[in-house]
Amino acid sequence: MSHNTFGYFFRVTTWGESHGPAIGGVVDGCPPGIRFKLSEIQAELDRRRPGKSRFVTQRREPDEVKILSGVLPDEDGETLITTGTPISMLIENVDQRSKDYGEIADRYRPGHADYAYDQKYGIRDYRGGGRSSARETAVRVAAGALARKVVPGLVVRGALVAMGEKDINRDNWDWDFVNDAENPFFTPDRDSLAELTEYLDGIRKAGSSVGAIIEIVAEGVPAGLGEPLYGKLDQDIASNIMSIGAVKGVEIGNGFEAARIRGEQNADQMRMGPDGKPVFLSNHAGGILGGISTGQPVIARFAVKPTSSILTPRQSIDRFGKEVDVLTKGRHDPCVGIRAVPIGEAMVACAIADHYLRHRGQTGRSGGSNW
Amino acid sequence: MSHNTFGYFFRVTTWGESHGPAIGGVVDGCPPGIRFKLSEIQAELDRRRPGKSRFVTQRREPDEVKILSGVLPDEDGETLITTGTPISMLIENVDQRSKDYGEIADRYRPGHADYAYDQKYGIRDYRGGGRSSARETAVRVAAGALARKVVPGLVVRGALVAMGEKDINRDNWDWDFVNDAENPFFTPDRDSLAELTEYLDGIRKAGSSVGAIIEIVAEGVPAGLGEPLYGKLDQDIASNIMSIGAVKGVEIGNGFEAARIRGEQNADQMRMGPDGKPVFLSNHAGGILGGISTGQPVIARFAVKPTSSILTPRQSIDRFGKEVDVLTKGRHDPCVGIRAVPIGEAMVACAIADHYLRHRGQTGRSGGSNW
Amino acid sequence: MSHNTFGYFFRVTTWGESHGPAIGGVVDGCPPGIRFKLSEIQAELDRRRPGKSRFVTQRREPDEVKILSGVLPDEDGETLITTGTPISMLIENVDQRSKDYGEIADRYRPGHADYAYDQKYGIRDYRGGGRSSARETAVRVAAGALARKVVPGLVVRGALVAMGEKDINRDNWDWDFVNDAENPFFTPDRDSLAELTEYLDGIRKAGSSVGAIIEIVAEGVPAGLGEPLYGKLDQDIASNIMSIGAVKGVEIGNGFEAARIRGEQNADQMRMGPDGKPVFLSNHAGGILGGISTGQPVIARFAVKPTSSILTPRQSIDRFGKEVDVLTKGRHDPCVGIRAVPIGEAMVACAIADHYLRHRGQTGRSGGSNW
Amino acid sequence: MSHNTFGYFFRVTTWGESHGPAIGGVVDGCPPGIRFKLSEIQAELDRRRPGKSRFVTQRREPDEVKILSGVLPDEDGETLITTGTPISMLIENVDQRSKDYGEIADRYRPGHADYAYDQKYGIRDYRGGGRSSARETAVRVAAGALARKVVPGLVVRGALVAMGEKDINRDNWDWDFVNDAENPFFTPDRDSLAELTEYLDGIRKAGSSVGAIIEIVAEGVPAGLGEPLYGKLDQDIASNIMSIGAVKGVEIGNGFEAARIRGEQNADQMRMGPDGKPVFLSNHAGGILGGISTGQPVIARFAVKPTSSILTPRQSIDRFGKEVDVLTKGRHDPCVGIRAVPIGEAMVACAIADHYLRHRGQTGRSGGSNW
Repeated sequence: MSHNTFGYFFRVTTWGESHGPAIGGVVDGCPPGIRFKLSEIQAELDRRRPGKSRFVTQRREPDEVKILSGVLPDEDGETLITTGTPISMLIENVDQRSKDYGEIADRYRPGHADYAYDQKYGIRDYRGGGRSSARETAVRVAAGALARKVVPGLVVRGALVAMGEKDINRDNWDWDFVNDAENPFFTPDRDSLAELTEYLDGIRKAGSSVGAIIEIVAEGVPAGLGEPLYGKLDQDIASNIMSIGAVKGVEIGNGFEAARIRGEQNADQMRMGPDGKPVFLSNHAGGILGGISTGQPVIARFAVKPTSSILTPRQSIDRFGKEVDVLTKGRHDPCVGIRAVPIGEAMVACAIADHYLRHRGQTGRSGGSNW
Repeated sequence: MSHNTFGYFFRVTTWGESHGPAIGGVVDGCPPGIRFKLSEIQAELDRRRPGKSRFVTQRREPDEVKILSGVLPDEDGETLITTGTPISMLIENVDQRSKDYGEIADRYRPGHADYAYDQKYGIRDYRGGGRSSARETAVRVAAGALARKVVPGLVVRGALVAMGEKDINRDNWDWDFVNDAENPFFTPDRDSLAELTEYLDGIRKAGSSVGAIIEIVAEGVPAGLGEPLYGKLDQDIASNIMSIGAVKGVEIGNGFEAARIRGEQNADQMRMGPDGKPVFLSNHAGGILGGISTGQPVIARFAVKPTSSILTPRQSIDRFGKEVDVLTKGRHDPCVGIRAVPIGEAMVACAIADHYLRHRGQTGRSGGSNW
Repeated sequence: MSHNTFGYFFRVTTWGESHGPAIGGVVDGCPPGIRFKLSEIQAELDRRRPGKSRFVTQRREPDEVKILSGVLPDEDGETLITTGTPISMLIENVDQRSKDYGEIADRYRPGHADYAYDQKYGIRDYRGGGRSSARETAVRVAAGALARKVVPGLVVRGALVAMGEKDINRDNWDWDFVNDAENPFFTPDRDSLAELTEYLDGIRKAGSSVGAIIEIVAEGVPAGLGEPLYGKLDQDIASNIMSIGAVKGVEIGNGFEAARIRGEQNADQMRMGPDGKPVFLSNHAGGILGGISTGQPVIARFAVKPTSSILTPRQSIDRFGKEVDVLTKGRHDPCVGIRAVPIGEAMVACAIADHYLRHRGQTGRSGGSNW
Repeated sequence: MSHNTFGYFFRVTTWGESHGPAIGGVVDGCPPGIRFKLSEIQAELDRRRPGKSRFVTQRREPDEVKILSGVLPDEDGETLITTGTPISMLIENVDQRSKDYGEIADRYRPGHADYAYDQKYGIRDYRGGGRSSARETAVRVAAGALARKVVPGLVVRGALVAMGEKDINRDNWDWDFVNDAENPFFTPDRDSLAELTEYLDGIRKAGSSVGAIIEIVAEGVPAGLGEPLYGKLDQDIASNIMSIGAVKGVEIGNGFEAARIRGEQNADQMRMGPDGKPVFLSNHAGGILGGISTGQPVIARFAVKPTSSILTPRQSIDRFGKEVDVLTKGRHDPCVGIRAVPIGEAMVACAIADHYLRHRGQTGRSGGSNW
């Protein structure tokens, strides 16, 4: 069975290939009565949109989202209100250049899903990677924009924390800078801008590509979200993020570093705050204990591999078993990790919205029970 | 909704708390006609069983699994044959010492799920961590033992590759040594034994704990398993692994290292082998491209945090909002990562079995289409 | 994939065969904090229990349910409180007489699932029908007893309204009489008792069997439960009921009669009641419009076929393709429809509980929005 | 949670309201390599299309389906081949006359879902019934047209067997006549044509409506499809059919009649056929035993209530609690049961396709094991 749905209660089903007429998705389970403007969805899509700088694919896609169902217009004519029925979203593909792909129709691009798709299905839409194209992620971002509205007070933000061997300086972290118009990298470190620019320019000109590490921080997550064993909040965040193409690893809070330290170092101690509410003295856990949110910020990081489409020829075979050399012209991001920032945010927001509704269903409460 | 099931086609539902009368689970969707011996399931359970060395909890549990449904005995009286109906497995809890937990009934142990459970449910079984206890993982191991039988030729093995700051030497990798009776750590590096022993003894005597990194390798995975977007094989492996308590990160193939390198370095090139079948010249991808298995070994690594139950007092609060110091006596593993090896294997085996059946359903084939 | 789970939010997974050591199930998603006594579950089981009169199978099963997880005892030592984690229930099989079935091991009993199971799985547990035995329904009744507790004010009752060609007189409907100790039929019509007794005695002595029609009425169902299209409340009630063995039809409200009448006759008109709340002037719809509950009583009826196990020889074949005559000795109900009453109630209660939690999750409310 | 998906393996998600810009759906899990022509889908849609006779709504909808993903064109330019990825289908709404509905925006039409939707969501798209409109069923028919292709040799046909108090004569059953151009009723009985015409004309002119009973017969269903308990083939057929608006009852094989007869009468006896394969001597079971197909034709019948939109005024209230009289002008079918024939076929075909793939996944076979 193919499986193109994620979420249990707030469920997103996506469809579409890179070079078909359109891509889209259905958000099912969104609560009724949520008010939003189409421009808010569009704003998130614009953050992910290709063609915005020389560091992302030059494919020109307006990525204009249409909402075909599940909403009623409010009296102001601009605000939409969800009705509780499925919300269908559609984004037309405008700038397909299928001819770019003609010569790789039968060839397996190393690092791409070409060979795997042929093994699985015996047939594939090779144009632009077909279903496995990064274009599909536009739908995730649109769904995530809705998910953000589901949980009152939720703020989900992301930033690039490493590109190839370059780490940003966390002491310079500035959330405001992340989405600054002059910042093509979503780096939170203004001082990193020049170095990253020079670095990625070099990679781009060399016809190469590089990976990146992205960090997502969700604030305003009520305590109590997540299932105890299967369907842990961190599990579902990890799952959602791992479903993004090119992601090879994910970690929560201290992550892999937790394997290196002692129990005393890793435990987040607690005290009572001046307002009579519990406070944690640290957040090594990344806001989740035993799969359940604690009320602290939820922190996830993930690794994106370098774009597989590069201009350097690589050894491969074609689907007839002939040995060939492959180099991919097309229009590609030298660092797909950059545009993964809004996608990662969207996937985390969807996981949190899903668990928010599940928690409310099981317990009748919208958050933690005690405080 | 609580959610205690994983897998879509090969589905495992578990139940039980650490200090209730028993734990158990139901495996649904197992193909009919699979033959196994109870002793084979038991052998896997014995690998995870507590009390085998001074480095794991001294709780004495025989972990004897009973199979209550879904099988018929073969004529030899020993072999069981699955009938296709749900397989219920039950393991009695024998050595509960609830009194050990009396004093932490109202206290939130730092790093534990205590606070989060109370936030979620407003009530919890505090004895031994209740549902979030590592005891539940015995059921996973039993289910995994069945999963291994579902895919012909599948071999899933795991090893500890780091404990705290100690990395094993991969040049010494010896699968045979991993399960050697004199090796309490599942290390594949015989030379690491003395150092790890001394290291963990020090930690244990200090009443402390430490984390670990585990690597799982699945060989004999047919090409073509996994869904293209949601339900990727690597996504489901990551999800399954992240559902294990104390896991804080997971990576596939090159993992986080992939973020640091170039596209040329990361791509796995292909040639035709002497037998007329494709061969990959490397396995940076960890056997999965675009979410679908390629036929190469599937490789996953995960980080286990240090046991939160330590003898060093930590600051916390109780559920009445009083500030307290907590130290956890009980019987605990100084490095829970050790016993995570068979658990990780089981979770990977379950994900692969699940996708094997899904692939067979959608395509009518048991593996890749072309070669 | 086998599929032994029902419900989306309040989920029940059952396991077990008629002649294995036990049957059981897991209720997942039950809200925390629900208080019940084991004796309440047992009371429901006792209503379904075999051996209570000469009109039901003489198999002697105490049907004593054990709860192995998901609850904590209250201070009174008798009340149990759900913790929100999965509730495992187990009922031992005591009175298996496998020898009764020896001679039908290879024969396909007409009207039974024997042939179909062999076609599906190529292997089956033939003893007592194996998985398809009515014994499994004990678990449904236990789960239903919990489901009743989930929805405050919910009352689900059932009655036999026809046995073979005998219809009860609805003018005599008396809910109190349904569970009267001297009433072995769950008939709501005291006057029907003598006639039904004589009728079924005749059938029983003739080694024959007969079908029945059961009606379930759920009162106290909040308005607003049910999904608009797939997952309609009536759909899920129908689905749950059709999953009971021997059920061949189900209808809601007017049911098949609705096909025979005009729009004016079928519409339930509305007025405002003296308390300022809407009242319906009739209930042809059976409490459900467009898949969603209206607040009126939910009414479902279903048809149970005559027991297939009869003493009259029938033509059949065995699994080697030999033509044989089959008559089934064993111990069987001359009218399995009788014991279907508590089972039907349980299945309706589970559907309502499930939708109650789903509604609460999506809307944050426990019932209708307006009044 | 809203729930707009059906099927487990062959999964259909629909979206859209009667008076939005479009309706549509996503078919997920369709096997790769299935070849079909768009005209084949369209042909099924045309059978359901409104405006074809004076007995169905005069809304003029071309119901032209577009396929936006999941297929590749074959070399002939006309045949499409499924790729295994999700198939998105879209049908534009052309002839919305929202003004017809202005006056019922705040009124609850008796027999309609208006009141229930407001209770559930507190908001609804009242135009044309919004989500609960029969328009949504066009998507089901399109999905069903694909489902028919999934199972080799499957033929699913339906017919109207009763309209109001008029039963067709089964002795005149002629499948060829059902889809005859001069037959607006899908009746299989040519002799019934005149009587049904006169009957329904009278009802139509009186501004009234009437119910109907539809029978679906699926031939070529392999033995062995269906799960033993939850997910029985008949259960899923019943569930799928009950999800169609206005359906109030469903039965399999003998159905409710089975409750009236004896075990000897109801059992389908078996003999060996001249070709060495088992034959059943009757089909009271409707092709399903114990939830699993036997290889006989699968037979389902369902009752459709009379259209609730009638010209006769009915008592009701509005959403402010005011008592009103409602009559529905709009354009409506005097007997919605007529157009339910292709919808019922589609829902049965989807259930069978789903179980075909599930059976193949679990067993590795495409049908029964023995013969």
